[in-house]
Amino acid sequence: MNCFNSRLSDQLAVKQSWLCVGLDINPENMTQENPTLDDLQNHTKKVIDATREFAAAYKPNLAFFERWGSKGFAWLEETLDHIGVDTLTIGDAKRGDIGHTAKQYAISLFDHFGFDAVTLNPYMGRDAIDPFIQNPEKGVFILCRTSNNSGVDLQNLKGNGKRLFETVAENCAGLNENDNVGLVVGATVPKEIDIIRQYAPGLPLLIPGVGAQGGDLEASLTAGNTNGVALINVSRGISFAGDQSEEAIHIAAKDYVEIMRTILG
Amino acid sequence: MNCFNSRLSDQLAVKQSWLCVGLDINPENMTQENPTLDDLQNHTKKVIDATREFAAAYKPNLAFFERWGSKGFAWLEETLDHIGVDTLTIGDAKRGDIGHTAKQYAISLFDHFGFDAVTLNPYMGRDAIDPFIQNPEKGVFILCRTSNNSGVDLQNLKGNGKRLFETVAENCAGLNENDNVGLVVGATVPKEIDIIRQYAPGLPLLIPGVGAQGGDLEASLTAGNTNGVALINVSRGISFAGDQSEEAIHIAAKDYVEIMRTILG
Repeated sequence: MNCFNSRLSDQLAVKQSWLCVGLDINPENMTQENPTLDDLQNHTKKVIDATREFAAAYKPNLAFFERWGSKGFAWLEETLDHIGVDTLTIGDAKRGDIGHTAKQYAISLFDHFGFDAVTLNPYMGRDAIDPFIQNPEKGVFILCRTSNNSGVDLQNLKGNGKRLFETVAENCAGLNENDNVGLVVGATVPKEIDIIRQYAPGLPLLIPGVGAQGGDLEASLTAGNTNGVALINVSRGISFAGDQSEEAIHIAAKDYVEIMRTILG
Repeated sequence: MNCFNSRLSDQLAVKQSWLCVGLDINPENMTQENPTLDDLQNHTKKVIDATREFAAAYKPNLAFFERWGSKGFAWLEETLDHIGVDTLTIGDAKRGDIGHTAKQYAISLFDHFGFDAVTLNPYMGRDAIDPFIQNPEKGVFILCRTSNNSGVDLQNLKGNGKRLFETVAENCAGLNENDNVGLVVGATVPKEIDIIRQYAPGLPLLIPGVGAQGGDLEASLTAGNTNGVALINVSRGISFAGDQSEEAIHIAAKDYVEIMRTILG
């Protein structure tokens, strides 16, 4: 049995890819007018088929499925089936709740949907994380420094000589007893990746914010893969590339991975 | 059209009840062995029917529905239908994500499921909250000081002369332009309610943690309803009261509300 963090490192090495394909299938981004749920499902499968060769992981964003209620969750179940077991899956859920409730979310995301890892929110402290890190094969990526403009509202507040996101990084390093804890750090703040690595050496990073959000691919890929590994998430830049054909999506994923290979030598 | 915070105050005054009935229908709490999803659905309806007279609001906890995937979300849709429009509903989802994603969660919780309010997480700052507070009729309760043991891990960190939860309270007061922002404060920390009121005067509070978590009903109800209003959430103490019959659940809700009426005179 392999711990999640080793499974991730192995996957990156075997595929020579650091690409996480985010599945945020927003009807407003489709070229088609008024797409139905069937259209969205078909597009999701197309994105998966077009990118299998290059994706180290897929990251379905639960919000885009929840938006459609029970039918949206049926679509999410089908999406996980379609991905299969050869590529890692990260449930982008950003959950965070008291232990009693967190346990239910862990059952949902790991046992029901079968994700390999999930994203979590650190605001409620350790006992909101614990139920997700009991099984070493399953991993978590905890929000540390986020890519949105108002990420600084709380995350950069200084207390006890550290900014809040630094305390989060340090606390998360302390949770990594099963080698299955990682962090979410936005590509919009590459300078802070080095600092985070000091507090959380070796923890894998999930880096969103490249593409539509304007993050720096080269800087964040390089910093993220120094003294540890990092996955770079791209959502809209791949799922809705060009004319949204399978070929356009395939080329977009290929281009990203080739650029990454060049950057990392 | 009424702002959410006025709708809430009106509801409390009309019903003379400060009781929020939490719907965390955990199969492990059922007296029945190996309950099916149908059993859980029937129990949920029973809890609603038994408590309608006393509940100022219902708070379905999404984790307990998500655990069952698409079928669980169908159960949540039926639950909302069964509650109807005469009692306020709070979707306990504790969501928090970048604006683009938060917008999808707002569509899910307000438009698809039809909740009157939702719980949110403040870690990602203002732009993760904004999409939920555009419609004044719909409200949010933002996590401020939570009832779990490790709530202190981050929330009590001091920066700029204030603890993090005090900064959250102050920031949330600044978001209340549409009179639809409230806070979540655990019943396990009643002393801190007065402090929160100083930073966020008049914001309604949602207070979980009474019952199974050992929070102080009298202290938190009194502090919460001084210079503002507060809803007290009870989940397991009502949904799984006594022999779990409709009568036992009815009596448990009635007892809570009578105690509350006595405390508030």
